[in-house]
Amino acid sequence: MVALPDPEPLNELIESLTKLPGVGKRSARRMAYHLLQYDREGAKQIHDALDHALNDLVHCKMCNSFSQEEICAICQSPRRDHSLLCVVETPSDLNMIEASHGYHGLYYVLMGKLSPLDGVGAQTINFERLLKRVFEYPVKEVILATNFTAEGETTAHYLGTVLKEQNIKVSRIARGIPSGSELEYVDAGTIAWALNDRRSG
Amino acid sequence: MVALPDPEPLNELIESLTKLPGVGKRSARRMAYHLLQYDREGAKQIHDALDHALNDLVHCKMCNSFSQEEICAICQSPRRDHSLLCVVETPSDLNMIEASHGYHGLYYVLMGKLSPLDGVGAQTINFERLLKRVFEYPVKEVILATNFTAEGETTAHYLGTVLKEQNIKVSRIARGIPSGSELEYVDAGTIAWALNDRRSG
Ligand SMILES: [Zn+2]
Ligand SMILES: [Zn+2]
Repeated sequence: MVALPDPEPLNELIESLTKLPGVGKRSARRMAYHLLQYDREGAKQIHDALDHALNDLVHCKMCNSFSQEEICAICQSPRRDHSLLCVVETPSDLNMIEASHGYHGLYYVLMGKLSPLDGVGAQTINFERLLKRVFEYPVKEVILATNFTAEGETTAHYLGTVLKEQNIKVSRIARGIPSGSELEYVDAGTIAWALNDRRSG
Repeated sequence: MVALPDPEPLNELIESLTKLPGVGKRSARRMAYHLLQYDREGAKQIHDALDHALNDLVHCKMCNSFSQEEICAICQSPRRDHSLLCVVETPSDLNMIEASHGYHGLYYVLMGKLSPLDGVGAQTINFERLLKRVFEYPVKEVILATNFTAEGETTAHYLGTVLKEQNIKVSRIARGIPSGSELEYVDAGTIAWALNDRRSG
């Protein structure tokens, strides 16, 4: 007697859910059962949201963050200080800095960080887009606000070297943020302080 | 300066992913960024799989498990012992019992368990469908293979009482399965032994 497999659409759903970061086969199975049995409405919502996000979101041509327009609202805003460019790893980090109310310049979102051990090199992060951004719309200063993790520090060091070679003023947010932690987990006051206390790179 | 929100399709995606069991706002955000930035192909797969699963899967009319046909392959099979009915909580439990190769009868999948503290009562679990199943296609014995957790035991006790009132022979799989654990986490040999050593209820 051979074990009969789950029906194909169920297997397909379980398999697809393992594409989510941190979700293994067992969690994916529970998620699939839950959606199909108790929350078909939620399943429909995820389906439609994926549709909209995949079709309607692009990367802002200036800051590289997700946007519905070619140039996002922050990059377009005349009320921001266009001479300052703050480089962060993710859109979450951008949100955290905005919430600190300590910064009024523009951003560049790397959408990742250098992680040589995982094979994430300068090609993957696409630093050239950042350099192009800085040449097209010159700024007075680039503030490196990558996380104070090993990868974030490597990224900041790499970017600092490359930008300074181009005679661009570079600073690093102050190490007021606890070493080894990530921006997302730090209170807004500390972030504001760290931005203010930035050192010339 | 007011913090600018994420673009709407991104918010929508993050919000929808919190519908997944065990996924909070922060995990949902990480999942959304990951899919949009690094795995759009995976996002497409989830989208399509949800489409297929929502449209193509129904509950088997006999065993209540997910199926592409009105009556699933197990319930249709002439090689199974149609006089035995094993009641389990989820399709995962059914798969685990199949993998033990210790059982050749049919199944009924409750798709849940009684959990009075969480407000999950006999209405939610729809025990009437199980009773109807047993009256329409009479069996010699119903084997209760719900988990040996508080909820599984409550469910087994409730079902045992109801079925015995209808003069149906009821048994409970042997408590060879470690108390407090769930079928999914037990090795196939123990499951086979527990099925074999079942006690008359
Ligand atoms: Zn932008
Ligand atoms: Zn069936």
